[in-house]
Amino acid sequence: MNVHELALAGLNDHRLFTVLDLAGTFAFAISGAVAARDRGLDWFGVMVIAFAVACGGGMVRDLCIGAVPPAGLTDWRYLAVSMAAAWMTIAAGPLVARLAHPVTLFDSLGLGLFAVTGAQKAMIFDHNAEVAVLLGVVTAVGGGVARDVLLNRVPVILRREIYASAALVGAIIEVAGERLGWVSSGRTWVALMSCFLLRYLSLRYKWNLPRSSGRGDD
Amino acid sequence: MNVHELALAGLNDHRLFTVLDLAGTFAFAISGAVAARDRGLDWFGVMVIAFAVACGGGMVRDLCIGAVPPAGLTDWRYLAVSMAAAWMTIAAGPLVARLAHPVTLFDSLGLGLFAVTGAQKAMIFDHNAEVAVLLGVVTAVGGGVARDVLLNRVPVILRREIYASAALVGAIIEVAGERLGWVSSGRTWVALMSCFLLRYLSLRYKWNLPRSSGRGDD
Amino acid sequence: MNVHELALAGLNDHRLFTVLDLAGTFAFAISGAVAARDRGLDWFGVMVIAFAVACGGGMVRDLCIGAVPPAGLTDWRYLAVSMAAAWMTIAAGPLVARLAHPVTLFDSLGLGLFAVTGAQKAMIFDHNAEVAVLLGVVTAVGGGVARDVLLNRVPVILRREIYASAALVGAIIEVAGERLGWVSSGRTWVALMSCFLLRYLSLRYKWNLPRSSGRGDD
Repeated sequence: MNVHELALAGLNDHRLFTVLDLAGTFAFAISGAVAARDRGLDWFGVMVIAFAVACGGGMVRDLCIGAVPPAGLTDWRYLAVSMAAAWMTIAAGPLVARLAHPVTLFDSLGLGLFAVTGAQKAMIFDHNAEVAVLLGVVTAVGGGVARDVLLNRVPVILRREIYASAALVGAIIEVAGERLGWVSSGRTWVALMSCFLLRYLSLRYKWNLPRSSGRGDD
Repeated sequence: MNVHELALAGLNDHRLFTVLDLAGTFAFAISGAVAARDRGLDWFGVMVIAFAVACGGGMVRDLCIGAVPPAGLTDWRYLAVSMAAAWMTIAAGPLVARLAHPVTLFDSLGLGLFAVTGAQKAMIFDHNAEVAVLLGVVTAVGGGVARDVLLNRVPVILRREIYASAALVGAIIEVAGERLGWVSSGRTWVALMSCFLLRYLSLRYKWNLPRSSGRGDD
Repeated sequence: MNVHELALAGLNDHRLFTVLDLAGTFAFAISGAVAARDRGLDWFGVMVIAFAVACGGGMVRDLCIGAVPPAGLTDWRYLAVSMAAAWMTIAAGPLVARLAHPVTLFDSLGLGLFAVTGAQKAMIFDHNAEVAVLLGVVTAVGGGVARDVLLNRVPVILRREIYASAALVGAIIEVAGERLGWVSSGRTWVALMSCFLLRYLSLRYKWNLPRSSGRGDD
């Protein structure tokens, strides 16, 4: 059984969520594969980075709540979707370049979905609200951090852009809604769309968090 | 219940240890926040690095002994203290600079305390002496390693300074004392103060471990 | 009881496997220690990197299957062999340089052995074929990735050389053989030698995986 099916067991929208989940995984994997290709990694490296971005955050979450082995390893669909993204990037670079817009769209949707389902899975395992919010954010942004560490650069989410902050907003809405007794289907959509819109609008209008004073390095 | 209260359950000095534990956490978080600000990270990045330094080592220890979710996620005080350190660094840089001396003091105390309590927690979970010593060191230095990996540089504890070695001395004294049947309160103070003094004196007199021959890069 | 003894419990070749296992660990640790020395780390840094290369992959595997604490922490022989390798590298650099050929040989054997035993341990813990193959590869290459991340460079296995791919072949043969009901002793030797030969011949004849197009950086 898919993690996100499990996590979203109260909803009527299973099929839609599964499609979004795999589309988000694909978009995350594409972002990893493109970054790896641009650094000149070999085929194996491109596949590893694609998989790390798509599944790394969820794997850290699963280790932290004791759900072993992590879903990224046990559910073949995540691996299959990641490999498909890696091979498309290797074999059809120009096609992937033309997909830039839908990939950004699904990446933003994936961010919201991963933040929400990550928080839900922590609550299903009976952990407190703080754990659920923090692990929602880890699920959403952990893969991107792994990508940047492996590619030997300071993680982009720590430097600029509204990305982790959008995931934080989504996770907080989901967890607060659960505590306040909102209908689960409703709160999940509100949380997901808040994160998605915040991320998507911040890209469009180039919003950034303030930087602390410092010498900077980019 | 706080990890360190648990770990130090045999002692009469609970309150003092809790204060030292949170002061050590604060000092660790300040060191992370200052390093992140100096690299020009945004506010979110400063908060993440502060939290990683303060809680990263303990989280790796907890994953290794199966104490999930890690204490850094479940006890809100660690998060609160880390966020306070991050915000002070962002909002009141000059004030933090004037705190350099007390921060160094509490950082050294935190090093000793984390090494000792890390080793104790591993022993409470019934693991052998080797595991306890190694995880004591990991608790004390893991956060600093995470900080340097995220900031894209070779961890400073691997390059110079008596830091991890001081933690090793503290963890060995604690574990050997437990095996030899020393009174727990006594051995804990001896272990903590040995680590603290070794670290503090090495800073004052600029002691370093020898470097192996090599081209170096700093 | 040694992990690999456990994992290979069906075989008649215990003693031989234990010797190979420790020889592989030693070779992995030497590769870490030499890299750390060449970056000018201090003695502590050399020891940490040696241990990370020798045991890092197995530790990630053990965290992923819930076998805590990881074998690298509980079995003193891995620590002892890693420290011996670190001290030889520090104290007898020229001697280590003359050992280059046997070290390469045992490194390739260790790669095969770790891939096979990593996959076996995952199957003993009752996980599916995908998990077993992925964790076999992680066991074999995880330590090298940790080394490169700590030394602040893009992991070499992601950039060139037939290394992880050889581990993948070994792990697939072991897992497929188990599913097809091959005699365990026979399939283990076939898997181990396939990985070893692929790695060893690729070094000798300078085979590489194709690189994806990109600007490269080495």
